[in-house]
Amino acid sequence: MAGSSFGTLFKLSTFGESHGPAIGGVIDGVPANVELCIEEIQNQLDRRKPGQSAIVTQRKESDVVQILSGVFEGKTTGTSIGFVIVNEDQKSKDYSHIQNSYRPSHADYTYDKKYGIRDYRGGGRSSARETASRVVAGAIAKQILAKIGVDIVAYVDQVGHIRLADKIDYNEIDNNPVRCPDAAIAKEMEAFIKSVKKEGDTIGGSVKCEINHLPPGLGEPVFDKLHAELGKAMLSINAVKGFEYGSGFDAIEMRGSDHNDLFNQDGSTKTNNSGGIQGGISNGMPVTMRIAFKPVATIIPEQDSIDKDSEVVKIVGKGRHDPCVVPRAVPIVEAMAAITILDFYLRNKAVTL
Amino acid sequence: MAGSSFGTLFKLSTFGESHGPAIGGVIDGVPANVELCIEEIQNQLDRRKPGQSAIVTQRKESDVVQILSGVFEGKTTGTSIGFVIVNEDQKSKDYSHIQNSYRPSHADYTYDKKYGIRDYRGGGRSSARETASRVVAGAIAKQILAKIGVDIVAYVDQVGHIRLADKIDYNEIDNNPVRCPDAAIAKEMEAFIKSVKKEGDTIGGSVKCEINHLPPGLGEPVFDKLHAELGKAMLSINAVKGFEYGSGFDAIEMRGSDHNDLFNQDGSTKTNNSGGIQGGISNGMPVTMRIAFKPVATIIPEQDSIDKDSEVVKIVGKGRHDPCVVPRAVPIVEAMAAITILDFYLRNKAVTL
Amino acid sequence: MAGSSFGTLFKLSTFGESHGPAIGGVIDGVPANVELCIEEIQNQLDRRKPGQSAIVTQRKESDVVQILSGVFEGKTTGTSIGFVIVNEDQKSKDYSHIQNSYRPSHADYTYDKKYGIRDYRGGGRSSARETASRVVAGAIAKQILAKIGVDIVAYVDQVGHIRLADKIDYNEIDNNPVRCPDAAIAKEMEAFIKSVKKEGDTIGGSVKCEINHLPPGLGEPVFDKLHAELGKAMLSINAVKGFEYGSGFDAIEMRGSDHNDLFNQDGSTKTNNSGGIQGGISNGMPVTMRIAFKPVATIIPEQDSIDKDSEVVKIVGKGRHDPCVVPRAVPIVEAMAAITILDFYLRNKAVTL
Amino acid sequence: MAGSSFGTLFKLSTFGESHGPAIGGVIDGVPANVELCIEEIQNQLDRRKPGQSAIVTQRKESDVVQILSGVFEGKTTGTSIGFVIVNEDQKSKDYSHIQNSYRPSHADYTYDKKYGIRDYRGGGRSSARETASRVVAGAIAKQILAKIGVDIVAYVDQVGHIRLADKIDYNEIDNNPVRCPDAAIAKEMEAFIKSVKKEGDTIGGSVKCEINHLPPGLGEPVFDKLHAELGKAMLSINAVKGFEYGSGFDAIEMRGSDHNDLFNQDGSTKTNNSGGIQGGISNGMPVTMRIAFKPVATIIPEQDSIDKDSEVVKIVGKGRHDPCVVPRAVPIVEAMAAITILDFYLRNKAVTL
Repeated sequence: MAGSSFGTLFKLSTFGESHGPAIGGVIDGVPANVELCIEEIQNQLDRRKPGQSAIVTQRKESDVVQILSGVFEGKTTGTSIGFVIVNEDQKSKDYSHIQNSYRPSHADYTYDKKYGIRDYRGGGRSSARETASRVVAGAIAKQILAKIGVDIVAYVDQVGHIRLADKIDYNEIDNNPVRCPDAAIAKEMEAFIKSVKKEGDTIGGSVKCEINHLPPGLGEPVFDKLHAELGKAMLSINAVKGFEYGSGFDAIEMRGSDHNDLFNQDGSTKTNNSGGIQGGISNGMPVTMRIAFKPVATIIPEQDSIDKDSEVVKIVGKGRHDPCVVPRAVPIVEAMAAITILDFYLRNKAVTL
Repeated sequence: MAGSSFGTLFKLSTFGESHGPAIGGVIDGVPANVELCIEEIQNQLDRRKPGQSAIVTQRKESDVVQILSGVFEGKTTGTSIGFVIVNEDQKSKDYSHIQNSYRPSHADYTYDKKYGIRDYRGGGRSSARETASRVVAGAIAKQILAKIGVDIVAYVDQVGHIRLADKIDYNEIDNNPVRCPDAAIAKEMEAFIKSVKKEGDTIGGSVKCEINHLPPGLGEPVFDKLHAELGKAMLSINAVKGFEYGSGFDAIEMRGSDHNDLFNQDGSTKTNNSGGIQGGISNGMPVTMRIAFKPVATIIPEQDSIDKDSEVVKIVGKGRHDPCVVPRAVPIVEAMAAITILDFYLRNKAVTL
Repeated sequence: MAGSSFGTLFKLSTFGESHGPAIGGVIDGVPANVELCIEEIQNQLDRRKPGQSAIVTQRKESDVVQILSGVFEGKTTGTSIGFVIVNEDQKSKDYSHIQNSYRPSHADYTYDKKYGIRDYRGGGRSSARETASRVVAGAIAKQILAKIGVDIVAYVDQVGHIRLADKIDYNEIDNNPVRCPDAAIAKEMEAFIKSVKKEGDTIGGSVKCEINHLPPGLGEPVFDKLHAELGKAMLSINAVKGFEYGSGFDAIEMRGSDHNDLFNQDGSTKTNNSGGIQGGISNGMPVTMRIAFKPVATIIPEQDSIDKDSEVVKIVGKGRHDPCVVPRAVPIVEAMAAITILDFYLRNKAVTL
Repeated sequence: MAGSSFGTLFKLSTFGESHGPAIGGVIDGVPANVELCIEEIQNQLDRRKPGQSAIVTQRKESDVVQILSGVFEGKTTGTSIGFVIVNEDQKSKDYSHIQNSYRPSHADYTYDKKYGIRDYRGGGRSSARETASRVVAGAIAKQILAKIGVDIVAYVDQVGHIRLADKIDYNEIDNNPVRCPDAAIAKEMEAFIKSVKKEGDTIGGSVKCEINHLPPGLGEPVFDKLHAELGKAMLSINAVKGFEYGSGFDAIEMRGSDHNDLFNQDGSTKTNNSGGIQGGISNGMPVTMRIAFKPVATIIPEQDSIDKDSEVVKIVGKGRHDPCVVPRAVPIVEAMAAITILDFYLRNKAVTL
């Protein structure tokens, strides 16, 4: 209950610091007898890994996952899956300057206040490197969900002021380094990220996620509403500042007569302001979410800060970092969506005898 | 794990349908030996109850809470607190028209799909009446948090297009039926809600919540980040469509150099885009959140819908309902914030020996 | 997590002190659409209630359960079931002598050490009165399990030195006040309990429990083995000192060649030293357990003790109490077995897609 | 919730099959800033590992633990500790004969029934090899508990019919291969185990465990009683058939007047039939438990059995196995006790503000 586990029946528990020997985790509650493609897990990790393009961090981690248990002759056995990803490109010296100093808007200060001790190298446990473990579990969940026809897709929706319009081509998403489903907008976003990077600065962005072909009935009433767990899942990703589903914040200005989703005769709805969820339970329509990411806190220009002894110090961004997190956040968002949905799918099996 | 519980160490489990004999719950993990004022619990319930003003539902529920255990001679004993609130004003006949029909954007359809059976009266378990149990637990949590100096306040921030500006007077909040901290804006909002109500329509809104004097160190890394649990807490409230903290969705368009919160020498920060949380852990600054509510789905004008047998039917809003939920949502938001924060406060005690 | 909840998917959370207004609980995760007979729940409570016969406590509690939610038109709806049992016969004055004194081998001392405050009346939360809530949840679980053919029976196996032999007639169990399945042995036990009671003393005993027609596959490997959860379930009942299943403690002196259960061709086994469980998972044979109960700590003769201020005091048993708990423990053992088994049945549904 | 996790605040999640690449786990909720001695963890593993003496299995596993996270410069950081133990001496061919056949009183049959798939090599997940992960977590918990003065010791109490008498010398425990605290009895037990082994047979035994200097107040009322969780912890160890604490099964034949533990003036008790626990909460006296282990199911003589297709087959014990598990079970029992106690110690911190 110290926060390193997620899920009820399909449950991921993770470990690992950015500059320790390895990161990894244990996935419990994996349904038995499902074929797993290890390459596909690696593919998802490759979508998240550093060094993919000119607009992400230039760290070089091969991020090769080793599956240590729970899979036998290509199939899940129903027992827990243990896995590790060895840390390789640890330039820990890059971080000696923050051993006693607090980088603004990083977790250095809060970890020190909470624990009284901190593995400062690369941000330690607070590094987004931890999300690689989520991608492993998510890639497994995605494969399992595919067997029941559920499909999850995420993409970059906005970078700074540049926002995606209506044109969405899923096939385009992995064709550009931004992971934006409109090639023209993607070019604009890419150029913008590069210009921000040149200034040593960073920029925020947002990711949209859609879950298609989800059966109705998933989600538990009251506290474990489908969107409440999805919201927690997304908000637990590093740098996330906000979450909305369906009409989201736009609903504030809407009237019920406009917002209500009228039924078609087959139970589908004419509009989808509900974002596929009514009363916390999936209704069979696509689940749609939007997740806001802040600009990365590590910037190149010198910033005033303080150290452990409350002395004023100067912080200069030395570590290799992303000018904008959203391109690499796309597979993480998909992973958290997949973990959450598979968990609810399994929980829903207990609803009847 | 069927979703009726919230919290890890301070844990609320609830029960109850809108038109059953009673609603209530069990609160486990209440710290021992704390003086509790039962009247103050009732006060919070009174802030949530129907029939308070002309702009909320005219149902008449006295919502009197009975504490059944866990309190002895005015103090908590550390054992679980059981409580019930008897349901009084149940005009169940009002709902016979939805026994087999599905109201648009309500949970009728999804409950039927999930369970194959539904207590349709007043929405049953999906009714926001359930939130009264949260207010009881929240009022207890608030009193306990007050002993350690933590203060939680929520207020209406927006109704439809009418938004609060900078003027915020906490003392004004309960002075007007909207629970808006600016008397002039409150008047505008009230008039707007009344006009919407006259049309038989409903309108969305948003609630802001601030948690002040929170010690640094609360929140658990990785999955149980402070804002992730707060997000889940808020998203689990009926009609909520979005959650943001600190800079929230505005962070999308911001640069790191603008977004970073620079430290003062005492560890406080010059700005608070972090919303009091860095790396999922409180930093001692005020925690700030904004929660988006959709317009209530029950409207008076006739709507096309379907019934169990996929026949087209007409739905007319008959039940007494709120034209805008945010005035009554204020104490619910405070309650969920208090429950979440007290839970993290207790969890944080286990961080050191 | 303060210990008032039991179960993972089928989960009971309880509240209530012996001499407060009421006890009760919330049962979450009840499968939907199952017919429930409320009278049958009351029947189980009546088997547990005080005052049934000359060999149990003479307190008079009618122990009438009120179901407050989760049941609609005679069927479970899948939402949480809330229930209360009003406390009636509270002679709280009987307990004023222990307000500041500690009864030997009761929980008075430990509650004071843990919480620094104690509702001393009737033992407060530590009273076995709490088990009535378990019987309610157990009676519901039993009815649900009956739909899938699972049958649970418990009976008194030993009282003091008097032990049941091979003759077991299930129909006899509720024919005698001891709940022993051999009428002749029951008479001996009854006479013995009466003689012990006459001396103002109490006596230990044991209860056997059998679970029949359990499908194979229930129980989760490693920590949540079927017998590990059953053991916890039984050990959580007041006055229990030991738990064994199958060959139990006799296995210590056995050889593998004698202990191994050889298979019949249909997968059943020729012997059942495994007690229906291999590797923590049910194998389809009857699950058999034996639970040891200590003699009740309340006795009539004066005992030396101490008070809060470490002064020596005299304790004399004044409250009405059972000379031997096992007759009333039988329905409690059945209830905990039913709750545990139904939970594992539901958990097992998530093992495959 | 598939059973691979144990604990609430101090929580171990494990993975690993006997003949996969590695076993290991994640330990979450480790208190921060505690010095950890890695060698001491390895020492405990060495006490459990195969091949230590002539009376245990002759498999050769070096069982070297690698700590992958959560420890920085010799101290715990409060973040999760990941660890792996590589599997080395896997003679998987030894097990080809059970690919489709079910060994009597093993978990082969039940795993197949539950999952429909089984990693048969060395018993897979059902192998007691999994307990090495518990020893790692337990060794960490023991070190942390030592800081607050709590001391846990276990020893072999009985092998077959040979039972320890009153003579108990803690220093003798690791001086003999049986781990019995009386050198003379140990010799008898050793000789007996050797004779049983010569016959290709196996023998049961029991382990006693004492927890000393435990502060009063640990354990949570109702379901999470201290002895209930300790019972679950012990019953979850492979081959355990029974658990008792304090007077245990002897209490059945005792009278209250004999069983009650009268207080000394300092709150200690003159006797300890309560086994250090009253009402599920520690009272400051030593916690005493006894755990019954069955004879190992793998025996050399040919046994009739069945295969997947219900055909009769012959099973001959080929894998290297222990003739008696209790010598190697001693560190496992200590580990589970330490994990459980540390968890309750941390939970108890939340009892007051």
